[in-house]
Amino acid sequence: MPRMAVRAAIFHTPRPGQLETLADALIEIDAAGVITAVGPATPERLARTVDVTIQLPAHHYLLPGFIDLHVHAPQWPQTGRALDVPLEEWLQVHTFPLEARYADTAFAREVYSDLVPSLLAQGTTTALYFATIHVEASIALAEICLALGQRALIGKVAMDAPDECPGFYRDACAEDAIRDTREVINRIRALTPDANPLVQPVITPRFLPSCSFELLKELGVLAAQTGARVQTHCSESPWEVAHGQARFGKSDVAALADFGLLREHTVLAHGNFVNDPDRRHIHHAGAAIAHCPLSNAYFAGRILPLREMLDEGLHLGLGSDLAGGHSPSILDAARMAITASRMREAGDGGPINAVEAFWLATAGAAEALGLPVGHFAPGMEFDALVIDTTGPERIAWPALDSPIQILEKIIRRAGRANIRKVWVRGREVTGA
Amino acid sequence: MPRMAVRAAIFHTPRPGQLETLADALIEIDAAGVITAVGPATPERLARTVDVTIQLPAHHYLLPGFIDLHVHAPQWPQTGRALDVPLEEWLQVHTFPLEARYADTAFAREVYSDLVPSLLAQGTTTALYFATIHVEASIALAEICLALGQRALIGKVAMDAPDECPGFYRDACAEDAIRDTREVINRIRALTPDANPLVQPVITPRFLPSCSFELLKELGVLAAQTGARVQTHCSESPWEVAHGQARFGKSDVAALADFGLLREHTVLAHGNFVNDPDRRHIHHAGAAIAHCPLSNAYFAGRILPLREMLDEGLHLGLGSDLAGGHSPSILDAARMAITASRMREAGDGGPINAVEAFWLATAGAAEALGLPVGHFAPGMEFDALVIDTTGPERIAWPALDSPIQILEKIIRRAGRANIRKVWVRGREVTGA
Repeated sequence: MPRMAVRAAIFHTPRPGQLETLADALIEIDAAGVITAVGPATPERLARTVDVTIQLPAHHYLLPGFIDLHVHAPQWPQTGRALDVPLEEWLQVHTFPLEARYADTAFAREVYSDLVPSLLAQGTTTALYFATIHVEASIALAEICLALGQRALIGKVAMDAPDECPGFYRDACAEDAIRDTREVINRIRALTPDANPLVQPVITPRFLPSCSFELLKELGVLAAQTGARVQTHCSESPWEVAHGQARFGKSDVAALADFGLLREHTVLAHGNFVNDPDRRHIHHAGAAIAHCPLSNAYFAGRILPLREMLDEGLHLGLGSDLAGGHSPSILDAARMAITASRMREAGDGGPINAVEAFWLATAGAAEALGLPVGHFAPGMEFDALVIDTTGPERIAWPALDSPIQILEKIIRRAGRANIRKVWVRGREVTGA
Repeated sequence: MPRMAVRAAIFHTPRPGQLETLADALIEIDAAGVITAVGPATPERLARTVDVTIQLPAHHYLLPGFIDLHVHAPQWPQTGRALDVPLEEWLQVHTFPLEARYADTAFAREVYSDLVPSLLAQGTTTALYFATIHVEASIALAEICLALGQRALIGKVAMDAPDECPGFYRDACAEDAIRDTREVINRIRALTPDANPLVQPVITPRFLPSCSFELLKELGVLAAQTGARVQTHCSESPWEVAHGQARFGKSDVAALADFGLLREHTVLAHGNFVNDPDRRHIHHAGAAIAHCPLSNAYFAGRILPLREMLDEGLHLGLGSDLAGGHSPSILDAARMAITASRMREAGDGGPINAVEAFWLATAGAAEALGLPVGHFAPGMEFDALVIDTTGPERIAWPALDSPIQILEKIIRRAGRANIRKVWVRGREVTGA
């Protein structure tokens, strides 16, 4: 790749709640897509030799790329439908039959070839994906992300418990699930044999109720052996919490820890019902919560105590939770996170603001995953997007808005139509 | 206008909760923009002579235009900003100073010339507007709506109470507010001197606390004299309810009724805290609630009991509440209405579904206003829009989705980019 410089007005939040604005910045990026310098666009900086200099037009802003910490890739075709039915019907009648179709790898390729560019166009430069139980479809997703340039963490879903998983869609036994998980880890690692792979495998027990003891135990062993990250659902609903108590005599978080699955950078989707000791446990382990506020309204039954978690310094980010959530946009998740935090009872922790939501969507999620992205600094990789605030879907009134008000408007109002360019590791992956 | 026929797949909800789908319909529209026939596109119907026949492409759907029952036109430039501050600061530091600028009619024309096409592009064919206290700016809004073809009901805001309204932005006294309200009514009626005007005036006390007794009394008299519709805010917050109790010894609804302001087609914005007798009172009067779920999360502190109100047969529709709400899209209001209804405590009324939200956005709001729009039937005026479900912002998977699932996806996911054409009274008012 050529050495590149981008001259732009910048918004980013290296630390929670702290917005940094540079009205006229220059970011220099090396041939590997790594940022080498960030600062005001001084004459000396501008005079340095690079291969390409990109200058953003007026009223365009450069932001770090968005990170989706929880997305079910196979559920993309049902996004927005069948959400008026109860969870059990949603899973058994709609979701599991759809996921079972990914035994057909051609179908998987068709859907994933639509999903990945759709997410890139929404500014999602990194996605933490649940795939399906199928090895070949999981590999297909990895190949498509690599080909299109999306940073991705991909898990073959492991689920073998006959009580909770239908006969037409489950791993036949724990041994098969472990064998297939191991194969997906090895094959994804073989696709990207560099030290710092763009696409990585993730160990993915669907959630505790859908996995046998044997499977959970062996997935923990596999995590220790391979060093692969872990993701799962956790304490999303009262049913799930009660199921864990009855089965393990403890919380989901404590049970996951027992199995060796609560590790650094483990991502727990939802976590609406984690209690205070759980939160300390998650924090101590360096694990993270993926907050999915759109799907929470449908399936959790409780608003996440986000204010408290932020103040405690937990690793946190946002998930679209396609297709329990009905939008592929992390900006939609960010605004619903703010809205939901406003809807908590007055006695609970306070709301979050737009800058905190921006941090969750970028730097917070990057820290949760331990990836060198999420804000602009030397040594970070250049994952970024451009927001046009005054085009056909105008959101800014430059004569009336202060910089922080423009950022607020971006977080509350911008959509795909405002996103003009997206880069991952310095490569432009979409454009308009 | 030429006589026109539109051949299309149709979704509409003539009655709450009842979706009607016609896979291949023909709607005939006369030169005045009134629908003369609706039915299957039979050879006989297709053979009838019209001047223009429009046939929608595959995977495009014709829907009734959306109706915004509560929108503050002057707040358009601040949409999405300054929402992290308390209400009092939002009003006094941000909103009132912005509204005061509309004393400058050129500024008003600049903003309204951006707002009206933006709302039309979102599919809002009818808007019930709060303007500002200014006569000329209110007339400018009416002229722009007429020129661009948006059906609109426009109110010069009346607010004269020194305790609640700042010195730089209020009617000087009740007499001035009445004189100016009367002038706006007369001048808007003079702009559209037909029996069935596209743009109509609305009597608009901001809310009870911002109006003197004298002003409220005289606005009630004016409503009876002129037959103009009425709109106001009502029982949005505990503060407002307490204020009304202290001042009138009764609820907002009962006080409005005393002043002659609770009339047929009066629209009460919010109503989150109306009690059971209030609801019966509203129902009996033929008044309506404009539900504004996005702004409610910021400023109301309670989710509207929407399920109960729907079941009781109250007149109901949706409002964007720009700029207490952060989106100009009635589809965003519809999905937040569903989401908020899901977030109510389990002991409260149940959630609403996507078809009910669609009814609120169209036929429900049309009934609330008493306008001949909102669904497709002979005698109704042709206010409609086209949704493209498989373009660049694809939402449908035709091989996988049933018709009702496509409607669900439209309600939960469609946005401005999916809206291809918009008609008001048979006139195409935007296109892509």
